This record gives sequence, structure tokens and C-alpha cells, in this order.
Amino acid sequence: MKFLVINGPNLNMLGKREKGIYGERTIDDLKDYIKKECKIIDENIVVDFFQSNHEGDIIDKIHEANTLYDGIVINPGAFTHYSYAIYDAIMSVQLDVVEVHISNVHKREEFRQKSVTAKACIGQISGFGFDSYILGINALIKNKG
Amino acid sequence: MKFLVINGPNLNMLGKREKGIYGERTIDDLKDYIKKECKIIDENIVVDFFQSNHEGDIIDKIHEANTLYDGIVINPGAFTHYSYAIYDAIMSVQLDVVEVHISNVHKREEFRQKSVTAKACIGQISGFGFDSYILGINALIKNKG
Amino acid sequence: MKFLVINGPNLNMLGKREKGIYGERTIDDLKDYIKKECKIIDENIVVDFFQSNHEGDIIDKIHEANTLYDGIVINPGAFTHYSYAIYDAIMSVQLDVVEVHISNVHKREEFRQKSVTAKACIGQISGFGFDSYILGINALIKNKG
Amino acid sequence: MKFLVINGPNLNMLGKREKGIYGERTIDDLKDYIKKECKIIDENIVVDFFQSNHEGDIIDKIHEANTLYDGIVINPGAFTHYSYAIYDAIMSVQLDVVEVHISNVHKREEFRQKSVTAKACIGQISGFGFDSYILGINALIKNKG
Amino acid sequence: MKFLVINGPNLNMLGKREKGIYGERTIDDLKDYIKKECKIIDENIVVDFFQSNHEGDIIDKIHEANTLYDGIVINPGAFTHYSYAIYDAIMSVQLDVVEVHISNVHKREEFRQKSVTAKACIGQISGFGFDSYILGINALIKNKG
Amino acid sequence: MKFLVINGPNLNMLGKREKGIYGERTIDDLKDYIKKECKIIDENIVVDFFQSNHEGDIIDKIHEANTLYDGIVINPGAFTHYSYAIYDAIMSVQLDVVEVHISNVHKREEFRQKSVTAKACIGQISGFGFDSYILGINALIKNKG
Amino acid sequence: MKFLVINGPNLNMLGKREKGIYGERTIDDLKDYIKKECKIIDENIVVDFFQSNHEGDIIDKIHEANTLYDGIVINPGAFTHYSYAIYDAIMSVQLDVVEVHISNVHKREEFRQKSVTAKACIGQISGFGFDSYILGINALIKNKG
Amino acid sequence: MKFLVINGPNLNMLGKREKGIYGERTIDDLKDYIKKECKIIDENIVVDFFQSNHEGDIIDKIHEANTLYDGIVINPGAFTHYSYAIYDAIMSVQLDVVEVHISNVHKREEFRQKSVTAKACIGQISGFGFDSYILGINALIKNKG
Amino acid sequence: MKFLVINGPNLNMLGKREKGIYGERTIDDLKDYIKKECKIIDENIVVDFFQSNHEGDIIDKIHEANTLYDGIVINPGAFTHYSYAIYDAIMSVQLDVVEVHISNVHKREEFRQKSVTAKACIGQISGFGFDSYILGINALIKNKG
Amino acid sequence: MKFLVINGPNLNMLGKREKGIYGERTIDDLKDYIKKECKIIDENIVVDFFQSNHEGDIIDKIHEANTLYDGIVINPGAFTHYSYAIYDAIMSVQLDVVEVHISNVHKREEFRQKSVTAKACIGQISGFGFDSYILGINALIKNKG
Amino acid sequence: MKFLVINGPNLNMLGKREKGIYGERTIDDLKDYIKKECKIIDENIVVDFFQSNHEGDIIDKIHEANTLYDGIVINPGAFTHYSYAIYDAIMSVQLDVVEVHISNVHKREEFRQKSVTAKACIGQISGFGFDSYILGINALIKNKG
Amino acid sequence: MKFLVINGPNLNMLGKREKGIYGERTIDDLKDYIKKECKIIDENIVVDFFQSNHEGDIIDKIHEANTLYDGIVINPGAFTHYSYAIYDAIMSVQLDVVEVHISNVHKREEFRQKSVTAKACIGQISGFGFDSYILGINALIKNKG
Repeated sequence: MKFLVINGPNLNMLGKREKGIYGERTIDDLKDYIKKECKIIDENIVVDFFQSNHEGDIIDKIHEANTLYDGIVINPGAFTHYSYAIYDAIMSVQLDVVEVHISNVHKREEFRQKSVTAKACIGQISGFGFDSYILGINALIKNKG
Repeated sequence: MKFLVINGPNLNMLGKREKGIYGERTIDDLKDYIKKECKIIDENIVVDFFQSNHEGDIIDKIHEANTLYDGIVINPGAFTHYSYAIYDAIMSVQLDVVEVHISNVHKREEFRQKSVTAKACIGQISGFGFDSYILGINALIKNKG
Repeated sequence: MKFLVINGPNLNMLGKREKGIYGERTIDDLKDYIKKECKIIDENIVVDFFQSNHEGDIIDKIHEANTLYDGIVINPGAFTHYSYAIYDAIMSVQLDVVEVHISNVHKREEFRQKSVTAKACIGQISGFGFDSYILGINALIKNKG
Repeated sequence: MKFLVINGPNLNMLGKREKGIYGERTIDDLKDYIKKECKIIDENIVVDFFQSNHEGDIIDKIHEANTLYDGIVINPGAFTHYSYAIYDAIMSVQLDVVEVHISNVHKREEFRQKSVTAKACIGQISGFGFDSYILGINALIKNKG
Repeated sequence: MKFLVINGPNLNMLGKREKGIYGERTIDDLKDYIKKECKIIDENIVVDFFQSNHEGDIIDKIHEANTLYDGIVINPGAFTHYSYAIYDAIMSVQLDVVEVHISNVHKREEFRQKSVTAKACIGQISGFGFDSYILGINALIKNKG
Repeated sequence: MKFLVINGPNLNMLGKREKGIYGERTIDDLKDYIKKECKIIDENIVVDFFQSNHEGDIIDKIHEANTLYDGIVINPGAFTHYSYAIYDAIMSVQLDVVEVHISNVHKREEFRQKSVTAKACIGQISGFGFDSYILGINALIKNKG
Repeated sequence: MKFLVINGPNLNMLGKREKGIYGERTIDDLKDYIKKECKIIDENIVVDFFQSNHEGDIIDKIHEANTLYDGIVINPGAFTHYSYAIYDAIMSVQLDVVEVHISNVHKREEFRQKSVTAKACIGQISGFGFDSYILGINALIKNKG
Repeated sequence: MKFLVINGPNLNMLGKREKGIYGERTIDDLKDYIKKECKIIDENIVVDFFQSNHEGDIIDKIHEANTLYDGIVINPGAFTHYSYAIYDAIMSVQLDVVEVHISNVHKREEFRQKSVTAKACIGQISGFGFDSYILGINALIKNKG
Repeated sequence: MKFLVINGPNLNMLGKREKGIYGERTIDDLKDYIKKECKIIDENIVVDFFQSNHEGDIIDKIHEANTLYDGIVINPGAFTHYSYAIYDAIMSVQLDVVEVHISNVHKREEFRQKSVTAKACIGQISGFGFDSYILGINALIKNKG
Repeated sequence: MKFLVINGPNLNMLGKREKGIYGERTIDDLKDYIKKECKIIDENIVVDFFQSNHEGDIIDKIHEANTLYDGIVINPGAFTHYSYAIYDAIMSVQLDVVEVHISNVHKREEFRQKSVTAKACIGQISGFGFDSYILGINALIKNKG
Repeated sequence: MKFLVINGPNLNMLGKREKGIYGERTIDDLKDYIKKECKIIDENIVVDFFQSNHEGDIIDKIHEANTLYDGIVINPGAFTHYSYAIYDAIMSVQLDVVEVHISNVHKREEFRQKSVTAKACIGQISGFGFDSYILGINALIKNKG
Repeated sequence: MKFLVINGPNLNMLGKREKGIYGERTIDDLKDYIKKECKIIDENIVVDFFQSNHEGDIIDKIHEANTLYDGIVINPGAFTHYSYAIYDAIMSVQLDVVEVHISNVHKREEFRQKSVTAKACIGQISGFGFDSYILGINALIKNKG
């Protein structure tokens, strides 16, 4: 099985940015953590990573992923709250997509409590730190199986 | 480790109710599924179940659970959208609580997209059918460890 | 034919409460009136009554009624305006349900003009005093036949 | 006893229009049904009918009906949602008026859930197909008696 | 092919009214222009015209047109923004209807940016002066063909 | 000088309707009162009257009045609150128009506090009973002079 | 008869301020105009004037006027839109009060279309330039007599 | 004199819950404090206590209290913000009821600033810790006397 | 102990104004009542009084009171609903401030249910007539002690 | 004459995406169709195409097009609903721009009914499938001529 | 060059008030700072200061300043958010006015993010502590020059 | 000291675009002006410039600038009003950022009055043409020193 993890804007700044909310670990730590945890689940899982601060690049990537992966775990960052274009992009592919958030969006600013992209996904997982991604991959596997 | 799974109003009707949305499996199937999946994760996990259509009973149960469990997975059903009393109940205990939903609430009626209880939880998981509960238990375990 | 009449919170106070709005007759007068009027319609109609101030009890009762009655006439009282749990309860059974109100809710406070439960019913009747119930039973009979 | 049944805009298209919502029977079928059902209630009931797509004609008719009828059953069609002029017209006469709707307005588009005319009526009945009219006439009779 | 062009309230005042917005040409100029342009498209197109300041007359006309025309081009004027009755009228016929506006409604007062009638049409065209009508007829022809 | 007084829907019911708000005098009393008061102001003032419950008739009348009168005093009744078509009609003529109301709209229901037609008038006068009309005519005269 | 004319904030700047909206005449011109016009109506009318940019001074003046005048014509300026304290002040006296505005508030910024003070007055007159005051005094006289 | 103190949901967790907001003292401390303070006011005051997390139990208790007490001090907890059923319950009894809150609701979350139950009470007291209850009892005594 | 009682706009009209709401007693009666009641509580309490219809004077007084009093009881009258300047003034001093209202603001007009000043106070008391002030002083004393 | 057709995000997925809404034809089919139809209109029309999922690229293209084309037909996709940057881009060029949509946006989700970009265009055309583009080009030609 | 610096309500409490937000320096420190900084810019700049907690005084001062100064730097304090009277005052003079705020209003309470007075100014500067004033004076000088 | 000036979408069109609002000078004129003015402040200031119509490029640039500059002056153009991603980008760096606007956003369209990015900045300056940038650099220098 082959999954794609997409990280949206500013997630490249993990560990450097607002540590009170996002913790001290970097995006490389995140990748390592996901790989390590996936190994535990199943030796054969392949996970690719993509991070971009560009809405258009994320849309292109989603289109491209259409036939290459068994599912996407996406953390759209701030695009979650206004990118109807990413919503449309997810609707335009046949892939299973799970939306994840590191922090519990329900506890934060009003604007973070509205997701325009989650409507296009199987489901949404938020609040569990890096584990939101692992739970997302688990969800994709269970959904397949 | 010992967890409590709380199911709110009308979840006793699972399998009998709006099957297009909630599927054909009953609440007993749900319990069996959770037990079976937990066994796979770790032989020593104990899971208790509680279902009630009474807001007050759910509040009482949360208070009671305070020192007896390592965490709660709660599907507050329709109470999700207006029970500030359950929100307060979760705030009043030291337990880790994860909110789960069988269907993807972001795809449904407007009123289902607002959660007043999720603010009091570690995080929220919605859209993965019965697996939302398993992911919730996983989240509690990871959060502990 | 067998019908269930459910009265929600504070309807046990009929005749004692805000007489300008609800009149001087009590809930027992209401029961007698319904029985008497049903006898006129058809000797064989059986009507059972249930009143509770507890949202959970009303939900339990609706579930229970599922296979025992030919229809429900429900006056959800103030729950009309916020109990999505009762809405879900009605959606979860195969019974015909008619929502009734003694007073014309459109003439009263703003909050009384929104019904979250009526969406789950065949229809709604409001403003005709005790006769709202009789009209509700008539509606159920006509709907059957 | 003599009643007037007023049907608002587009109700002349019954049976030709959106059959999924309004059924296959025409406005003539409706008249026949009402006459037949009234006969059953009481041989001496006289029912007159008026249909118009013109707001002004409906207002004129309400004014005119003032001393000629014992009550009006009105289905204001789409005027229900914005005609404060019809609201004022009903307020300006001493007649008992009951508002009826064929479909359950609470289950339909947002704009259909607000009635500006019901505030001026004794009550409102919606959701019972042609029987909404019969229930409306019953309500007027009971109100008289 | 035979089309009906319906102009709503105040469009009889074209050329006399707010020339900064609507230009100097009258409704007769509009008719001539439409006829001339239709001739260019196809010699055999027949176009009839109807203008009224009466909501009810427009509804009557739409009902009547049902079997007589291949499509309607309608400029509902101010009724665009509140006539749910015209919306219902369009829904009640099997005709293709295109909504047109002379000025670009998106550039004008807030209330002009909401159309309650366009939901019932194939599509909407606004902002091209008299050519909005020609484009509307083109749209009907293409839709047929 | 020649003025037109237009009364909108339900003003034909003056004196018969909601006397607590509109007083006991009829529309004929109103006409007599206006004539008598105008005589006092200036022997040569001519006042014509028009009342209709039909939005379309009022629009037609406004168009027609365009070159025949020196000004219009209009009480649009309930149309005040939603008839953008009458707003457009007033915008489409070169006449001075004054909007008047018998009761003080600011003291009444929420919906009566919004005027969509006043924007197209020179000004608005409300709350002075029949004298609102006299003040309106005075305003037109002063505006001329 | 004795009347008080109260002018609120910035009306001392008349003729110096936004001449496109308020014209070129000053507050002294306004006083002269009112006096001259009152003389024409009735030699014995006494009019006093008060202008202040201080909400508190206007409230004090209204209290004081209670037994000294037969009525007040007030142009509350921008206080119209937020001074509930002036609203309360008018409610606290037995005087007839008429609210006037020089410009037609319905044609201007959104915030100018809401009056919190008009609710406490007999009525409101807006849009007739300095004549709004004369019409206001006329209204007070007619109301007396 | 005999008073009833009703505490709503989660107030049994006082001293265990969000101590930053509610302090360290328990519900038993609250009872003792109220008793002690009442003794100081008047030796003969009797105070009974009732706490429940069940909306229905609180409604039942209010009905029951109708003839047994001289007044109720109620802290409806989170029910303050949505229980129209408790609002109706207070309206249905002849008892004087005072609503109290430990914390100043105006300083907290948006949703806590709206009280649907206070409309049915004599008045509301919030922000004084346990003393809110003592002030409430004082208010009831003064109201009697 | 020394307290300051501040009364906002129009409270000087007590007993003269809207007696149905505020009663027949004057502001001097209020002062006497407060003094008398304070004597009963403790012979040594000193209470000073300040009333003004001027927002600025109230702000000046609050600043001035900063070091002279042990607390303020303030009834900001209509300023309660829009004076962010008074809110800021209370925030700018170290004094304990209690907001009081004679009538139950929750039962009155919509705009009276929002307090912008209460956020800056210890708490708010409303609905107990003159006793709201006495309860406010009690609250200050208890808060000190 | 030379026109530019700009397609926004996800329109490269035409024919692969939500076929129920957008049909089975691809973006290449769209290009061919537009070319073919333009040929019919006038042999000399040149049409260039640009598609991008990147808001910035679309803005760059609009700037660039400024002097190279006689007009733009733009389908901004989901950017229609939030890209004030594209709105500004259109405002910053002297080109005629027409906004088009394949589906009738008035019939779809709430968010699709608001266009922030149409305000900057000559007009908007929606609902006619691929023909919306042809109508858009026609509109540009007529506008020129 | 001669400038006037106006400080609104509560700014006299600088250094005593909410130091976390406004710092420890007093209004006299502010004056000294402004004078010192102006000296650096240009020896010949004269700056006068005015502070008041009275809306009316600020309006009076603005009128008065009309011909005496080359510009005003105003910090309207809380009046920023509701004083349409100050907005009108600024509109009524020919002076250049710059609005300044010590703290960044965009980071604070919702109500502080709306300025009704900034619309009447050249521009607004917020967030730079005492330097907001210096930047404001710089802006006035640059605007002149 | 080294500063970065970031210009968002469409600012490359300065001087070509809506000259009534933005003036006739181009972005190169802006750069020259900033350089010239900085020279006057301090010979050693280095200013770099970056303009992009791409949200993602601006985010990348902000991240990159993190350790290279002493502060950023940003004019986010239309991104000001919806780019939560740029808001997050500014939050993710340790740099001082000042938001500037050429025109006074408070005087323009409603949507321009809301800034989602200013919350992440030290402060905001708007309305002073090219001088907004100079004032921004001054603000950064003063903030440093």
C-alpha cells in the first residue's frame, strides 16, 4: 500500500513556529515519526511526502496522485478554512482522502473551526499532535480493508 | 489500561435507523467490534460501554468515570450540537476524552457541523464508521504513552 | 387502531400555568377530551398517553413505541426548539409522527417559531387548543387510510 | 356554515407541477375531495373556492369575504413567505383564518420555513397533502363550536 | 422555433428611466433589436413579447406558455429578488427558461445580487445590455440543439 | 397645482381594521380630510386619489402619473417593506414623491422599520395619523416653491 | 404655543459642512427660517432653540423642557443612531416630540437608516431640508389641536 | 420562611472542577456557607438543597416546589443557555425565583452571556462566588417583605 | 467603609418616568432608602451619591473615585448598552465595581439584554428594584471581607 | 479579433470529475468546441487558452493579456468565491472580461452563489455547459461592435 | 506648522491603567515624548494637546481647530467604535486628520476592530505605542508637503 | 539595518491601475521613493524589495526572511482580507512585521475593512499613499531602538 501525506502552508516551519501550539519537533521529525509508525503497522507501507505553501501546487499534486496512491492524508493548514479550490480538487479525484490537524481546531480561533475541505474527505481527525497523521493512515487502511 | 465508551442518544438504534447513513450493524455489533479490535492492539485493554438517551445520565457517568478509567471515547450523538452541560462535565474531570462520530459530520446538515463538546476534548475523529471508535482508543493509548 | 400521545415538558402543568395562553383545562381534561373525541371518530381507537419532563424518557418512549402503535401525536413542548436528539429519535423509527402545539407558535416569542423536530414528522398542526391533538389523530388516520 | 378556500399562486398547476412534492391530483380533484369530505362531516356545509396568482386579488377576496363566510382556509403558496400585504389583509377582517400547506414546509428549502402570514391566523397545518384542507375546515368548525 | 420574451416591472419605462444604467433605447427598440438579431440567426424564429408590472400576470403567462413555446427568456426586473411565486411558476412548467438582466447585477445594490428566480432557470446572463436577451435566445437554441 | 395620493394594500379597510392602530375614520374620511385641509392651504390645489391592493396597479399608476401631476404622496402600506418593483417605479419617473405612514413605523414590528421604497422618495413622514398626508402635501408644495 | 427646537451634534456646522448634503445655509439661517415660517402659521407661536454637541446636555434639556413647552422638534444628528440615553430621556417626559432630519436618511449610509430615538417620538420626518423642521412644528400643532 | 436552592449540572463537581473559575470549595462547603449565612440573617430561615445533572429532574422539582417554598434560588449551570424547558417550568409556577451564577458570566465565553432562563425570574445575580446565593436569598426576603 | 453610588442617564427622572417599569419612588427616595438600609448593615458605612446624564462626567467620577472609595455601585442606565468608554474607565481603576439595574433587563427590549460595561465589573445584579443597590453594597462588603 | 479563455482551478479535470455536474467532455473537448464554434462565427477569430490551478498564475496572465487581446472569457472556478486578488487583477487592466460558469451556480451550494470576481467584469453567464464560453465570446464581440 | 493632538476617553489614565496593554508611561510622558520627537523633526513645529472624556468636548474642539491648525492627530479611545458624532465632526471640518492607536486594535477584542471614525480621516495608524503619534505627525507633514 | 518590503498581488500594476485610488506612480517609482527617503533617515539602511501575485511565494519569502532582515513592511494587497496562510506565515517567524496600505481601507468596500493579516503584525498603517511605506520603516526603526 502506498500513501501520500500532504502538508499545507507553514507546516515546513514546524518546530520553529508557535511551539506552545505545535510542539518542538520539525517537519523532518514528523516524516521520521510517520515512517517509523507505519513500519510498525505493516512493513510494506510506502509513504511519500509533499509540503507546499502554494495552493496551486497542492491542487496539482492531488490531481497527479489520482492513480498513484491508495489514499491521501492531508493537513491543508490555513487553506482548510477558505480554499474551495482544494475542496474541488479532492472532489475531482477518486482517491480516499483524510483530513488531519495537529492541534484541536475546536479549541482555537473561531475561523479555525470551519473546514471547507473536510466536506470532500472521508473524515477528519484533529487534536492528536503527530499522531493525527498515524490515525489518518490507520483510517485509510481500515477503509480499504 | 481501562477505557469507557459512551454512546449518546439514539445510538441504541444503530442498525435499525437510517441505514443509508449509519450502516446495518447494531450497537451490539459495535461493542463486539471494539472488543475484538482492542484485543488485537493489546490483550490487556479493558473496555466498558455505556449508552443512554439521557443527557443527565451521561453527565453522571462522566463524573463517576473520573478516577476509574484511563480515558473516554464519547459519541455524544445529537447532544454534540447543544449540550453545554456535557461540555462542562468533560471540563470538570481530569480524564482524557476523545469525541468520535460514525458519519462525517462535515458532509451533513448545517447543525451537525458545530460541536460544542469537542472544545472540551483532546480531539475529534469523524467519518470512519465503527473505526472512528477504534481510532479514538488508539488516540487515547498514544496520548498516554 | 392504536395511537400514542406524547406530551413534553411542563404540559403536566396545563390549567395551572399561564392560563392566558394555554387555557384553564388540565392535562387530565386533555386526556378525557381526546378519549371522548376519539370515541366519536371510531369506537375502536385506543389512545395511550405519556407525559414527561425528561428528554431522555421521551426518546426512550419513541423507540419503544416503534412496533406497538400506528402513529404518534407529539407535543414536544420547549424541546421543539432545541432537541435534535428527539429529532433523531423520530427519524430512527418507522412510525408516522405528527407534531402538535396548543398555541399558535407563529404568534409567540421568536424562539418558538423554529421547530427542529417538525422536520422529522409528517406534518405540524399548531394553534387550535386541545383540538390540535384531535386534528393530529385525524391526520394519522387519514394518512393510514 | 359557509367556508371559503383560497389557493394562492401556482396551485392551479397542481398535478402538472413537481409531482414528487405535490402529487398527481389536480386542483379540480382537490375541490372534489374537499366537497366530498365536507359532505361527510355535515350535509349543510357550503364551500366556495378561489384561486389566483395575483396577490392583489387574494387581498380583495379576503376583504370581500369579511361578512360572507364563517371562516377561510388559505394556502397562500409562495406568498406565505413574503406577503406582508396578505398578513395585513387577514388582520383587517374579523374572520377566522387557518393557513394550510400540502407539503411539510419544515422539510423543504430554508425560505419555506418562515411564514409571515401565519401570525395573522388562528393556526397553521402543514404536511398532510389534500387532507391539510380538510383538517383546516375541521379546525374552523371546532373553533366555532 | 418559437420563443417568448417576458419583461417584468418597469421595463416598459426603458429609455425613460435611469438612463445612466439602462441606456436611452426604449422597450420598442428592444423588441426591434431582438427581432432583427433573431432574423440574422435564423429566418424562422418567432419571438413573442410580454411585459407586465403585475407579478400575477407574469405567473399566468408562464403557465400559459407551457405548451406554446420552445423556451422563455425572462427579465423579471425587481421580482428577481423576492418573487418566490415566479420561482414556483417556472418550476411548475416543463419549459426551458433563461434569466437575463440588462445591467450587471453584481455591480449594483446589495439586494440586486440575490436572485430567487434564477434557481428555477437553466442559467442566468447579466450585464450585456440588450445583448443579454440575444445571448439568452442563443442559449435556448443551443440547449435545444 | 395637482397632486396624486396613492394608498396601497388594505388602506381601503381604514376604520374597519385594527382601530387601535389606525383609528376609526375610513378612507372616505381620509379623502374628505385631505380635500378640506388642501382647500385651507390653497383653493387651487387639485388632489386625486388612487387606492389599490395590487402592486402592479400601483406601478402602472406611477408611470401614468409621470406627466400629469406635480407630485405624489404615497402610502405603500405593506409594500413599503418588500416591493423593490415600486422602488424601481418611483426611480423611473421624474416626479417628486413623498412616502407617508399613518402610524409611527419605528414603534411597531421589526419588519415595518425597513423601507425599501423611501430610498426613491424625497423624504418620509410617519406617525401623524391622517396629518401625515397633509404634511406630505405641504412638503411637496414647499419643495416646488 | 411654545416649542423647543433641539439640534444635536455638528448641526452648528451647517453651511460650513458637507454642503452637497446639507446645503449652504447656516444654523442662524435655519433659526431665522423657522421663526419666519412660524410667524406665517400663527403670530403667537414662540420657538426656542438649543444646539449642543453634548449628549448629556441634550438629555438635561429634554428633562427641563418637560413642563415649559408644548412640544419638541428634535434633530438628534448622529445620536439618532446610538443614543439609547436620549431615547430614554424622551420616554421620561410627557412632552410630544417629533424627530426631524434635513437629508433623507434612507438614501444615505446604512448606519443612518436605523433610528433608536424615533421609537420614543410621535413620528419622524426626514428629507425635506429646513422644511423638515417646519413640517415638524406643523405636526405638533395639529397633534395638539 | 423556607427557601429551596437548586443547583444545575456539574455543580456537584465544585471544588474538583476548573478551580481557577469556581474556587476550591465543594458543594458541601456551599451548603454549609448558605446555612451559616442564613442563620445570621434570621434564625428561622429554612433552606433545602437540590442538585441534579438532569434537566427533567430540575423541572419536576420546580413544579413540586410550587406550594412548599417561599422562593427558589436557582443556578441552572449550563442549562441557563439553552433550556427553554426550564424557562417554561419557572413560568408555570407562582414562586419567586432568582437566578444566580458563581462567576461573572459577562466575562466568559460568548455562549454564557445569553440566559434563556433569566427572563422567567425576578432577577439575576452573577459574579460574587458563593455570595451570589446569599444575595439571592436576601433578594427573595426583601421581595417578600 | 466608604462607597460611591453612581446613577447614569435619566435616573434623575425616577418616579416621574415610566412608572410601570421603575415605580413611583424618586431618586431622593432611593438615596434615603440606601442610607437607611446601610445603617442597618453597619453604622459606619459612608455612601456618596453621584448622578449624571453625561457619559464624560461619569468617566471623570470613576477616575476620581479610584483612591477615595472601597467600591462603586453603578447603574449606568442606557450607557450599559453602548458605552465602551465607561467600560474602559472601570478597567482603568483598581476599584471593585458592581453593576446594578432596577428592572430585570432580561425581560425587556432586546438591546437592554447586552451589557458592555458588566464585563469590567465584579458582577451584575438586576431586577430587584431599589434593592438591587442594597444587594450591590452587600456584595462589595462581602467581597472585601 | 483575438480572445483569451482562462480556466481556473480543477477545470483541467473536466470529464474526469463530478460528471453529474460537469458532463463527460474533457478540457480538450472544450477547446475544440470553442475553436469550432468560433470558426462558425468568424473565420478570423483567434482564441488562446490558459488553464491553471494557481491563483498567482491567473493574475500574472491577466496582467500580461492587457495589450495582447480584445477580451477575456474567464471561468475562475472556485476562485470566483474568494479571490479578491483576481478581482483586483481584472480591475487593473483595460480589457473587457466576461465571467462564465458551466453549471448554474444559483442551483448549487450556498457558497457558489456569491461571486467576488463578477463585480469587475462586464457581465456573467452561468448554466449553459460549454456554451457558456461561446455565449461569452459572443458577448465580447457584440460589446466591441 | 501647528498641530493638535486629541486624546479621547481614559487616555488621561495612561500609565495607571492596564499596563500590560498600554505601558507604564503617563499622558505627561506622552506629551513630553511628542514634543521632544517633534523638535527633532523640525524646531518650528508647534503641538497643542487636548484630552477629554467627553464626546461633546472633543466635537467642540474639532470644530474650533478648523482654522487654527495644520492638522489633527486623534486617538478617539473607545469613541472610535461608536461615535458617529465624532465621525460627522471630522467630516464637517477642512482639516487633515489622522487616527492613531497605541495598541494594535486588530489583536484585541472584536469590538475594537471596527472604527467608525477612521472613515473620516486621511488614514489610520495603530500598534506602535507612543510612536503611533509621532508617525501620525510625520504623516501630516508629508501630506502637506 | 536591513529591511524587506513585500508587495502583494496587483501592486506591480501601480500607476497603470485604478489611478483614482492608487495614483499615477509605478512600482519602480515606489522603490525609488522608498530608497530615497531611507537615505534621508539613515545612510546605512538597506532595503530589499519583493513583489508577487502568488500567495505561496509571499509565504516562502517570509519564512526565508526570518534571519536575514531586521523587519518586514508588507502590503498584502487583496490577500489582506482572506489569506490566513499569510497570517500563519507571519506568526511562524520571529521578525517584526508592519502592515501598510496605500489607500485608506476604511473608506473603501466593506470587504477591505477586515484584515486577517494585521493580527499577526506589530501594527497597521493605511491611507498615506507611498508614505505608508516610509512610516512603516520608521515604525520598525523606532520599535528596534
